[in-house]
Amino acid sequence: MGYLNLGVVGTGLIGGSIALAGSRAGYRVTFYEPASGLVETVLSGAVRATDLDDLASSSDLIFIATPVSSIAAVADRLARCVKAGAIVSDVASVKGAFFNRLSEIFNGRCFYLPSHPMAGSEKSGLEAARVNLFENAITIISPDLCQDKAVLERLAQFWRQTGSVPLFVDVATHDRLVAAVSHLPHLLAAMLMNHVATFASEGLDFVGNGFRDSTRIAAGSSELWTEILLANRTDLLTNLYRFQDTLNETIRALEANDVKSLQAFLDAAKRSRDRLAG
Amino acid sequence: MGYLNLGVVGTGLIGGSIALAGSRAGYRVTFYEPASGLVETVLSGAVRATDLDDLASSSDLIFIATPVSSIAAVADRLARCVKAGAIVSDVASVKGAFFNRLSEIFNGRCFYLPSHPMAGSEKSGLEAARVNLFENAITIISPDLCQDKAVLERLAQFWRQTGSVPLFVDVATHDRLVAAVSHLPHLLAAMLMNHVATFASEGLDFVGNGFRDSTRIAAGSSELWTEILLANRTDLLTNLYRFQDTLNETIRALEANDVKSLQAFLDAAKRSRDRLAG
Repeated sequence: MGYLNLGVVGTGLIGGSIALAGSRAGYRVTFYEPASGLVETVLSGAVRATDLDDLASSSDLIFIATPVSSIAAVADRLARCVKAGAIVSDVASVKGAFFNRLSEIFNGRCFYLPSHPMAGSEKSGLEAARVNLFENAITIISPDLCQDKAVLERLAQFWRQTGSVPLFVDVATHDRLVAAVSHLPHLLAAMLMNHVATFASEGLDFVGNGFRDSTRIAAGSSELWTEILLANRTDLLTNLYRFQDTLNETIRALEANDVKSLQAFLDAAKRSRDRLAG
Repeated sequence: MGYLNLGVVGTGLIGGSIALAGSRAGYRVTFYEPASGLVETVLSGAVRATDLDDLASSSDLIFIATPVSSIAAVADRLARCVKAGAIVSDVASVKGAFFNRLSEIFNGRCFYLPSHPMAGSEKSGLEAARVNLFENAITIISPDLCQDKAVLERLAQFWRQTGSVPLFVDVATHDRLVAAVSHLPHLLAAMLMNHVATFASEGLDFVGNGFRDSTRIAAGSSELWTEILLANRTDLLTNLYRFQDTLNETIRALEANDVKSLQAFLDAAKRSRDRLAG
């Protein structure tokens, strides 16, 4: 199978960018998007599917790029007409919440392999989509149930064609790690933004770039993020309990005017952040 | 007095940038920096003072741009030779810790007026200094004890000449607001960085721009920030106690799978952050 027929379900920031990057890489792109609007202008190189059956029966590689809450319903529909040997992937920020369900739905029909491109923006929707959104970003592929090296490689190749760097991480590890590096930071940014808006709103008149950067992701879609955070609730809570301990310790160090502890804490953070930059 | 003789004590990121911006605006700049190194190359348009007496006696507008812990000692030395009618300012991120002391030191000798340019970088030192560091940033001037409109205007004019926008905010309000918009975010960035480095270090291999932005300020100098945070300990603790409450509430909402509360919380944050961008 050539896998040159790409299907994209949902044309928001990620789905739209996949369609654009796929067209650029030479795929014949079909998309399914119930909403009208910008779609046909932005995705002028792609074909609009009349329904999910149409998309499933004409695609060799399919991305489900809808909000988390719709993924299982879309998968159910796709499974009816999906080609044997096709690869179906999703692009959600959390996997465990629906991985078993989708694995069952597609079992024996096609290959299901989750993807998570670690690229995004506080903006959402097709108007924010970009052909180069994935360039230099890591995309996690979770190979848990797939033993077929050629299939894994085919999906990895697609992501490389978008400019991304694929990395294989199993579903449980993925969810545990993104809870720490993505979901916790999102909640903290929202907490900081609400804290300042509530207790120090006059301060918003003179914030510098530090505050802007610290809170940028809080401008993300509240609908999408509510679904993501709740779908990864257990791992996120584990992180929040630990963060609560760190916060309490930091408060105690400040109460005690403990120069040495505070300096060591800030120094450790600086060293880790410096390594990240390099 | 023409105020065209500018004195800068300390040539780190902020002092160095003041010297560069002052030279560009046509001031005759004298700086005092005990360390050797890059200084004479970067500040080639400025004159090196032999000591603080030399700098004080030749300057009409003086910025103390040293770490917080050195400000009072520098002020003591400057006071011996400062010109009557000169303006002395500092550029620290916190004011209350030394404002009364400096007001006493300079009382009857010259005008003392704190400044706080809300510009900076996670980088520090003269190698990070830029002539345009202050462009479009707010600079807070605290006029608490100064009744002389012409003096206030003269300092405000200097900041406008650097490209900054001056804003008058008293010392107590300044410290309360920067605790929320600058000092709390700094601690949170450090906490987040240490949290991930401790509990999810493998996740650092695939972090996206969101995490990078959220933690950027954690790369700031740990020495400088320890001094700043402890100097504003009381206001910072007030903020940390409130943040602790917010964190606890957020944890309860997640534990209860409370979609409505979480969505409302993220939505409020998004609306505030969107207003900030506009």
